Amino acid sequence: MQTLIIVAHPEIAASSTQQFLRRGAELVAADWQPLMSEFNVATEQAKLRAAKRIIWQFPLYWYSAPAILKAWQDQVLTSKFVLHEHGLAGKELGIVATTDTKASDYQSGAAEQFTMAELLRPYQALANKAGMHWLPPFVLHQFSYQTETQQQQLLIAYQQYLTLPQPATFAQRQHWFAQRLQQMIATATGERKTQLTLIAQQLATKQDELAELRWTIEQMRGDD
Amino acid sequence: MQTLIIVAHPEIAASSTQQFLRRGAELVAADWQPLMSEFNVATEQAKLRAAKRIIWQFPLYWYSAPAILKAWQDQVLTSKFVLHEHGLAGKELGIVATTDTKASDYQSGAAEQFTMAELLRPYQALANKAGMHWLPPFVLHQFSYQTETQQQQLLIAYQQYLTLPQPATFAQRQHWFAQRLQQMIATATGERKTQLTLIAQQLATKQDELAELRWTIEQMRGDD
Repeated sequence: MQTLIIVAHPEIAASSTQQFLRRGAELVAADWQPLMSEFNVATEQAKLRAAKRIIWQFPLYWYSAPAILKAWQDQVLTSKFVLHEHGLAGKELGIVATTDTKASDYQSGAAEQFTMAELLRPYQALANKAGMHWLPPFVLHQFSYQTETQQQQLLIAYQQYLTLPQPATFAQRQHWFAQRLQQMIATATGERKTQLTLIAQQLATKQDELAELRWTIEQMRGDD
Repeated sequence: MQTLIIVAHPEIAASSTQQFLRRGAELVAADWQPLMSEFNVATEQAKLRAAKRIIWQFPLYWYSAPAILKAWQDQVLTSKFVLHEHGLAGKELGIVATTDTKASDYQSGAAEQFTMAELLRPYQALANKAGMHWLPPFVLHQFSYQTETQQQQLLIAYQQYLTLPQPATFAQRQHWFAQRLQQMIATATGERKTQLTLIAQQLATKQDELAELRWTIEQMRGDD
């Protein structure tokens, strides 16, 4: 599936979070497109036509994307392209937002008063108008405060957000991870290859156990 | 009360709606400030400090303001100014939005799926964070399709939105209108002066009748 990531960030090169995500996106062959202040409307529309899943990725500034994304939307998403030619119809729209504030602040009664779903309504309304399929937004709260392990876990979740059907089931995410592991084993050498092979074997054993448990549960249900 | 209207429109001079509203704003001595792509942050912050009521006025493009307002917000509303110096605290924030789509489209199940209140959440969240008092938004739907009389009525509602406590009571709006009429009589001459004086007299008679009715109702309530 062709995923196009449009990154709206005034200083992409200086953002360690964006650079971290960029490496993750490249590993799953998503198309990483940082927004520049100058762009060609026809070229941008062609890129959108070619994509199946479109991601708008940005840090949240005053509860929406930086101005550069709005400028791009105002100019590229013309009525002709979106409403008459249905240039975005049937495609998926995902939001990857980063924020320095914590997740629990986004609820009624808390510091931010509104949920992230409420704050992202303008983008959801756009998806609706354009005939797009709106994906559950992927929000990274206080990413730079996370431990390295947490960041790696978030990176996997991000890669799955870019590539898997959304919302992804547990089985789909598990299958995705096993596949990625096989790819890593294929390119690894020496001790690293041995370690990765061991992890894959352990994972496969656990998967067999899980499958067995699931089968038992189904039998029990069938007995009722 | 000092009301500052920040108008974000890529072609203000060519917009008949904005020009119409501008004349209304000038009559109530509101400060009309069209946003330019170049601005000085310190000057803009000084204007905001001087205002009691701040209005962001714009046509709705993809469910939010044109990019020029977001660029201004991203640059002028610094953390230092808004969060540390509390530069906007205690002020009122109003939104005047124009759209070519009809009011009934903005509800669940209708064409736009979301209410205008939902779509304007990012601005409301900003008001909340900045310690501002959020006014009920003033939305003009399909203004150019209205009759001349309807447009004049909307202009009065707009002028009241700029100047009266919000939401304004019926008595406040009535008092405002009577005052405006007296101002017009003062500057009119000849037949126009006679006509306006007649209207003012009729309005005063109706107000007396209303006051009498209200008094009667209060008496009846008192008898219970």
